Amino acid sequence: MTLYGDERIDHLVQDEKIRIIQSPTVFSYSLDAVLLAHFTYMPIQKGNILDLCTGNGAIPLLLSQRTHGKIVGLEIQERLTNMAKRSIVLNDLTDKISIIQGDLTERQTALQQSFYDVVTCNPPYFQTKHPTQHNENEHLTIARHEVCCTLEQVIAACKLYVKPGGKISLVHRPERLVDILTYMRAYRIEPKRLQFVYPKAGKDANMLLIEGIRDGKSGLQVLDPLYTYEADGRYTAEMRSIIYGE
Amino acid sequence: MTLYGDERIDHLVQDEKIRIIQSPTVFSYSLDAVLLAHFTYMPIQKGNILDLCTGNGAIPLLLSQRTHGKIVGLEIQERLTNMAKRSIVLNDLTDKISIIQGDLTERQTALQQSFYDVVTCNPPYFQTKHPTQHNENEHLTIARHEVCCTLEQVIAACKLYVKPGGKISLVHRPERLVDILTYMRAYRIEPKRLQFVYPKAGKDANMLLIEGIRDGKSGLQVLDPLYTYEADGRYTAEMRSIIYGE
Repeated sequence: MTLYGDERIDHLVQDEKIRIIQSPTVFSYSLDAVLLAHFTYMPIQKGNILDLCTGNGAIPLLLSQRTHGKIVGLEIQERLTNMAKRSIVLNDLTDKISIIQGDLTERQTALQQSFYDVVTCNPPYFQTKHPTQHNENEHLTIARHEVCCTLEQVIAACKLYVKPGGKISLVHRPERLVDILTYMRAYRIEPKRLQFVYPKAGKDANMLLIEGIRDGKSGLQVLDPLYTYEADGRYTAEMRSIIYGE
Repeated sequence: MTLYGDERIDHLVQDEKIRIIQSPTVFSYSLDAVLLAHFTYMPIQKGNILDLCTGNGAIPLLLSQRTHGKIVGLEIQERLTNMAKRSIVLNDLTDKISIIQGDLTERQTALQQSFYDVVTCNPPYFQTKHPTQHNENEHLTIARHEVCCTLEQVIAACKLYVKPGGKISLVHRPERLVDILTYMRAYRIEPKRLQFVYPKAGKDANMLLIEGIRDGKSGLQVLDPLYTYEADGRYTAEMRSIIYGE
């Protein structure tokens, strides 16, 4: 497998068999992707799954170990699309995962509307409008800031591709909870399961995981909290179980 | 102090000095009221506080120990209004707390609009439309079911009486979170602080506490979770601290 620049091949957490091409200057997946993949409902035997803002393909790779369904990843950046595609070849998963380069704010003819059983997304979190607040690195800026798509556009795209009764799941920041719920309702994705992640006991939540159902009935379940670290800075037993399968 | 029917005088948790008239068949305050009073921001030296759906006045009595401001409680049921008024006399708090009988869905001329620094409410939780699902006891039905006011009417009333920049705080069920946030936004009460209460570790949340600011800026803080019980069924240390001040 050809590697470019500072790319390296890492083992994917949760599954030592799977390897992923990463780069500190282009893109490396985060704990957020791991938690979203773990949180997301997966049909086991068959189904169609779409991952928006797929980056280097971490979420499709993680999900591929939990389903016999087909997974498509959509990514706007050519450089990351290329990394994701090479990781899929590297793992011999070309039958199961495909990656499309494209902008989620535009109609993607390669993706069928109202079709997917599950749509996942780990979108850019930050609403920083001014370029001085952006990362100097364009790849990281697009992945982290709402430069190429807003939260509303992400949820509109989830709605466009998920089938009626299908599920969408997102990871995001608690500060945006009201916006997330408001847009989900506006696009008829009823929020059904919500889980907050706390860095440690006694601290405010710093991440949320949410699942909604297209045209679902109202009624939200707030799951037991996840804590990332113990007081001594080690991962909690629950987090180790999610990350390493311990 | 005259007591009617099965009324009794209890000591108020959090403050042994304060006594409250309760009745198992009319109304007794719950942990929800205690947690709301604890969660709510209180101006210490002065200010005007309004408690909607005040019941037997538990929240005004609890808050009176944290502020030198004036507190008004609004209650629709004559029987409960009378209990609350007698508890205030019993505690010699008539200078600080007043109780008004009235319907929050109607304009209350005794209450000044856009005036209160803080508006609190522990509203009826259940949307049960069919009378067969109601409690046979009318007093308890009105307190627990959306018979006399809906969630939207509660939030509309909060908005009507709170001053611009003032705070509202509610206790409710997590199932209704999406509705609560949607109505708060619709009435220009921006959600600012949210805390979930879990019966014990590993269980879904069964209560939420939320504070919003009229005309506030967006940006929500999700506080560290509260757990009610340890695995062995005793109150957690944090809950004992809130309830008994231990």
